Amino acid sequence: MRIKLINPNTTASMTEAMRVSACAVAAPGTEIVAATSRSGAASIEGHFDEAMSVIGLVDEIRDGPPADAYVIACFGDPGLLAAREITDAPVIGIAEAAMHAAAFVATGFSVVTTLERTRIIAEHLVRNYGMQHHCRRVRATELPVLELEQPGTRARDVILAECLRALEEDKAGAIVLGCAGMAGLADYLEDRLQIPVIDGVCAAVKFAEALVGMGLKTSKHGDLAYPLAKPYAGKLAAYAPAGWRGSAQRPEERFEVDAGRNV
Amino acid sequence: MRIKLINPNTTASMTEAMRVSACAVAAPGTEIVAATSRSGAASIEGHFDEAMSVIGLVDEIRDGPPADAYVIACFGDPGLLAAREITDAPVIGIAEAAMHAAAFVATGFSVVTTLERTRIIAEHLVRNYGMQHHCRRVRATELPVLELEQPGTRARDVILAECLRALEEDKAGAIVLGCAGMAGLADYLEDRLQIPVIDGVCAAVKFAEALVGMGLKTSKHGDLAYPLAKPYAGKLAAYAPAGWRGSAQRPEERFEVDAGRNV
Amino acid sequence: MRIKLINPNTTASMTEAMRVSACAVAAPGTEIVAATSRSGAASIEGHFDEAMSVIGLVDEIRDGPPADAYVIACFGDPGLLAAREITDAPVIGIAEAAMHAAAFVATGFSVVTTLERTRIIAEHLVRNYGMQHHCRRVRATELPVLELEQPGTRARDVILAECLRALEEDKAGAIVLGCAGMAGLADYLEDRLQIPVIDGVCAAVKFAEALVGMGLKTSKHGDLAYPLAKPYAGKLAAYAPAGWRGSAQRPEERFEVDAGRNV
Amino acid sequence: MRIKLINPNTTASMTEAMRVSACAVAAPGTEIVAATSRSGAASIEGHFDEAMSVIGLVDEIRDGPPADAYVIACFGDPGLLAAREITDAPVIGIAEAAMHAAAFVATGFSVVTTLERTRIIAEHLVRNYGMQHHCRRVRATELPVLELEQPGTRARDVILAECLRALEEDKAGAIVLGCAGMAGLADYLEDRLQIPVIDGVCAAVKFAEALVGMGLKTSKHGDLAYPLAKPYAGKLAAYAPAGWRGSAQRPEERFEVDAGRNV
Amino acid sequence: MRIKLINPNTTASMTEAMRVSACAVAAPGTEIVAATSRSGAASIEGHFDEAMSVIGLVDEIRDGPPADAYVIACFGDPGLLAAREITDAPVIGIAEAAMHAAAFVATGFSVVTTLERTRIIAEHLVRNYGMQHHCRRVRATELPVLELEQPGTRARDVILAECLRALEEDKAGAIVLGCAGMAGLADYLEDRLQIPVIDGVCAAVKFAEALVGMGLKTSKHGDLAYPLAKPYAGKLAAYAPAGWRGSAQRPEERFEVDAGRNV
Amino acid sequence: MRIKLINPNTTASMTEAMRVSACAVAAPGTEIVAATSRSGAASIEGHFDEAMSVIGLVDEIRDGPPADAYVIACFGDPGLLAAREITDAPVIGIAEAAMHAAAFVATGFSVVTTLERTRIIAEHLVRNYGMQHHCRRVRATELPVLELEQPGTRARDVILAECLRALEEDKAGAIVLGCAGMAGLADYLEDRLQIPVIDGVCAAVKFAEALVGMGLKTSKHGDLAYPLAKPYAGKLAAYAPAGWRGSAQRPEERFEVDAGRNV
Repeated sequence: MRIKLINPNTTASMTEAMRVSACAVAAPGTEIVAATSRSGAASIEGHFDEAMSVIGLVDEIRDGPPADAYVIACFGDPGLLAAREITDAPVIGIAEAAMHAAAFVATGFSVVTTLERTRIIAEHLVRNYGMQHHCRRVRATELPVLELEQPGTRARDVILAECLRALEEDKAGAIVLGCAGMAGLADYLEDRLQIPVIDGVCAAVKFAEALVGMGLKTSKHGDLAYPLAKPYAGKLAAYAPAGWRGSAQRPEERFEVDAGRNV
Repeated sequence: MRIKLINPNTTASMTEAMRVSACAVAAPGTEIVAATSRSGAASIEGHFDEAMSVIGLVDEIRDGPPADAYVIACFGDPGLLAAREITDAPVIGIAEAAMHAAAFVATGFSVVTTLERTRIIAEHLVRNYGMQHHCRRVRATELPVLELEQPGTRARDVILAECLRALEEDKAGAIVLGCAGMAGLADYLEDRLQIPVIDGVCAAVKFAEALVGMGLKTSKHGDLAYPLAKPYAGKLAAYAPAGWRGSAQRPEERFEVDAGRNV
Repeated sequence: MRIKLINPNTTASMTEAMRVSACAVAAPGTEIVAATSRSGAASIEGHFDEAMSVIGLVDEIRDGPPADAYVIACFGDPGLLAAREITDAPVIGIAEAAMHAAAFVATGFSVVTTLERTRIIAEHLVRNYGMQHHCRRVRATELPVLELEQPGTRARDVILAECLRALEEDKAGAIVLGCAGMAGLADYLEDRLQIPVIDGVCAAVKFAEALVGMGLKTSKHGDLAYPLAKPYAGKLAAYAPAGWRGSAQRPEERFEVDAGRNV
Repeated sequence: MRIKLINPNTTASMTEAMRVSACAVAAPGTEIVAATSRSGAASIEGHFDEAMSVIGLVDEIRDGPPADAYVIACFGDPGLLAAREITDAPVIGIAEAAMHAAAFVATGFSVVTTLERTRIIAEHLVRNYGMQHHCRRVRATELPVLELEQPGTRARDVILAECLRALEEDKAGAIVLGCAGMAGLADYLEDRLQIPVIDGVCAAVKFAEALVGMGLKTSKHGDLAYPLAKPYAGKLAAYAPAGWRGSAQRPEERFEVDAGRNV
Repeated sequence: MRIKLINPNTTASMTEAMRVSACAVAAPGTEIVAATSRSGAASIEGHFDEAMSVIGLVDEIRDGPPADAYVIACFGDPGLLAAREITDAPVIGIAEAAMHAAAFVATGFSVVTTLERTRIIAEHLVRNYGMQHHCRRVRATELPVLELEQPGTRARDVILAECLRALEEDKAGAIVLGCAGMAGLADYLEDRLQIPVIDGVCAAVKFAEALVGMGLKTSKHGDLAYPLAKPYAGKLAAYAPAGWRGSAQRPEERFEVDAGRNV
Repeated sequence: MRIKLINPNTTASMTEAMRVSACAVAAPGTEIVAATSRSGAASIEGHFDEAMSVIGLVDEIRDGPPADAYVIACFGDPGLLAAREITDAPVIGIAEAAMHAAAFVATGFSVVTTLERTRIIAEHLVRNYGMQHHCRRVRATELPVLELEQPGTRARDVILAECLRALEEDKAGAIVLGCAGMAGLADYLEDRLQIPVIDGVCAAVKFAEALVGMGLKTSKHGDLAYPLAKPYAGKLAAYAPAGWRGSAQRPEERFEVDAGRNV
């Protein structure tokens, strides 16, 4: 099966690091297609960055051969429900994947993330995913996302120290890494902490394999049905959904856009 | 004061109807500037339409002279938190405004909206705004948004019938109209139902006046702080935030974009 | 429009301070009628003080010319639902007003209040108003209400220190002042904290203007309907509601009491 | 031990019926002192009636020899926390008692109450008492409270029919009677329904005995501490709490009022 | 009436200490039958110990003359709902009893328990019993259960210190003792803390008396109905429920097991 | 990898049907070891049956070569946390697996289960797993578990009819099959309903593969740590955990029992 791992920020080196993590856990028959968004922010660290990232995400879902499942590789899970509308392949966010995985192996986990402002966003996700009772606390390190990328920084030490506080103060049974850029740190941290440390990229890839393996597709009954056909104007004209054809109410295989227009 | 009322869909006739409603309740010194999004969907009826509407919304906040407050005139409140990041003027969504207003005049209300798929989105808003105990039920009428616009349709009767069911079955003490396109119906319905019927456009305009009158601005401490300065790529390069200048950590008056680039 | 601002404690100097705050934000056409309760506690600092304050509150709503809206100017919002029963004019409590205002300008706020015992009462309000996710914490300063009134006290410094802790420890994006007696401190605190500081008296007056401006009245369908006509005995005989006249189920303009009796 | 059963409405025949129910379950050594409020409404059917009932309730707690525990015999539990402030004897409301009892014998119960407007109040209690998961539904019969008192009415049949709907539709495992006036119906209903039917008067008396038997008293640490000493004005001058004497912060045995004043 | 107090661990000295506590509060006509489980763990300090304790608990309910009510004397309330299925006598767990009692005398309490691992289990109970708003915090002392039994240990001091932290940090109005083995400490702690300290054994006995005195039995409508008749295999063959006899759907007096088989 | 699928009831034909379902979705390298409990109920339809099933479940986890993950194949997830204590291999219940899977492909699902009494148990699981917002409703069919096994029954039609009601009334976007015995029906129902129909056995097997593939193990920090070493008495003496050896606080690889004793 083909799983398309989409980095909704535009930093290709981060995509590559995630690809390595994903490939390390992928099952033998799984092809990981890693894509970097071509539009939007170099790093996603707020509501605005997130909202602006959806165009690039949608482009990656629409372009290229269809995948069997899509992974949104940013801990805010930007555009998750919009993405689920435009394909019937499963779409998984790394935040939800990591939290679900943590709930399977511990009765309580803490999230360790980057900036305080993203901490608040993560708390919203905790509530939306019904993880209030499992998530003991979301902790910010005040590390900018791109600093995680740079060699020779204090990032690893800062994160380890925060994880240790989560064990001591929150009595966390597991750690959820709150940024796609932390993917490479899971083993290092798990060695030192001796509790499960969960990277959402790996979790999302494995859960995507699981859903495809079960034959599950995104429900097209309700709010995740294909977008209704309607005109789109201006810069976004090319994003107008073609919608359901005919009266049989059977959705097309994939979300189709009106051809011949461009942004 | 100047309140900019932004219709995030591209249907100008809907904007005009909302402008009329807004002007009817605006205080003497309030100038209503109504704007129609220049990019995106003709009507917003799902997660995808909503996500795609944020570009047009941001354009309207960035363009023209600054307003004292902004109203997002779509019941899904698309892009609300992103919009709050890029300005320190208050930004109010019509769904949150309507629900807050209803909570002031009734211990329980029901929302009457358009399609089933938007009903589910409205339920998410109810939870996010802490209105679970006040909102008795969200009811769909299966009316498409744009049918509300067309003269001679059954829309008014269908909505009235659903409101009556809300009184009878939900014991609703007030009705929240779940679509910006229903603004013109509030008086008609209130006459027949004899309970408060709340149109979010009016509520948002009045609450915007109230916040400006109190001297309140959007908090710039935490997740609603101005977006961090960083490069944006591709189609969205022009949306890159310039961020805070200098070391004083004092945000610029308004969100500034890097000049000389274009979509 | 006329807004009656009712201080449910009997300390007239506090009423006067609140009147000044209210007038400073009231719109040009708004008349603020400030009234001090004639019965009950000099300050309201507990469940018992609150319960005892309702008689005086009801007296103020019943006496004098009807107002277009009423504000209950005590942070516990005592008698709020009872007051909403006896008039169809909007009635707003300053605690709910302040919390709703804070939710419009920040994703998280902290309340800074007086005594520990009132802190617990404020936590109950947070839950009743659905503000659990917005309210990060309620903080007590152990300042008695009337000490806020006295010149030359440490009150201002103590409150500022607690607000700073709310920023640092709770990561609050806004401060809600948890006592009507703190109204005069909002500007002073906002200057020093550089985040929104919300005084409920101002918020309630502006939201009352907003509701009246929208033409909204308290729902008379359900638990906020006028009290049923019935005899009242003893000291409270004069408080017996006259109820609905005739079969048309149309409530009288205002709650009427049986004449000729007295407490 | 002496348990004072206070009917906060002024209808003495209802008090007598409750006294009979209470005596039927009281333990051998328990003396039931039943008192009818001398001030306020003949029946309590709304927020206003409830708020007005607290004066009469407080009078009954203050008058006569102290009791070992107090029961507030109205399903809205009016004045419960205020009453707990002014005595250190346990105070129990019949609504909370009935719901706690139901939670001990069934995983789900429904409440059957009188008017729709009191139904909403009961829903607030369900939330305040943490019974959302146990309470399947609150059902109104639209019977006025005093009709329960009158011989030869349809009340019994109407209530039985509503209980049967609770079994069928809500799958209730137990019924909580939602009005003090229904006390006499429990046996009749239990015979026909074959599930536990709980009258709050009986439950409150037995739980009061239990708390006294355990030696438990109302906590005086926090919001239930004795009211602070302070002047009360006007009609309520006699209700001013005398507060703590001396510096030892040790509360007096009972709430004391300043002598020589009157309402 | 006869109340059977079942210690689901196998340490007889703990049972005896609980029996003494129970007898000290039991009403004159109450016979306390204390039983120690004959199978399972010497102390219950985890999910596994709890699950394994149910066999011994069921044996005690089935053996000997029927009681009028049963108390499960372990703070985790193991097997509570299973036990309620197999008898129609009330069954009360000491954790739920203690929390309900605390909610009657304080608006907030803290639980002080033994090991960190049992602290987490107690938090689950808090949620299941709807006590999230009443319970301020569950605190672990890291004392093993059986150390509470041993004379001359530091246990009493450690628990007192933790209770003092609960007063200071949690502003607890009452303390719930989170282990059956702490029963004897309630008076000692209450003397020093001057707030209610609640031992679940006493609370459960008194509430059991209360329910029996009200004539309440466990509901047999729904999930607490007698177990359906069906074969049980292997070691547990003797535990097969005989179920309802005949078509009248009237349950037998007590859960019956198929005779002639053994474990 | 080896996944042990444990049917905690004693009906081998049900195990075999589940094994077929599991093998149909298992990845190439996965070995499914299906085991039927040797002790306890032929079908699990209540709290008592569940509690009694844990012995047999524990026996299967302890016996035979260790597996890489365990699946508890009964929709009540009996003994889940106890099982997680005694092994560090992931343990997954089919109810939690099915609900997590449904949350990935739909914003709302309904559960269709067997008897009304198990419906209530499933509602408890929904709350414990944080699925209240995703689960629209749990629906009982009143089919006994073992009737699902019998050829030629109405079971399939009854379940299909209930699923159709879930679509129509609950607006469910997906169906969760609420009994292990329904595993074989998923394809049949999905064909007719055209929405995802999720069988927990398949979901649990795939999620178990995913967790093992990620290298995740059950946290041994907190309440899921290995059981403490202590004596067990009577019939359960052989179940006494051997606990941690030495002072290094490093758990043994697997839960060990004291040898030489028997039930």
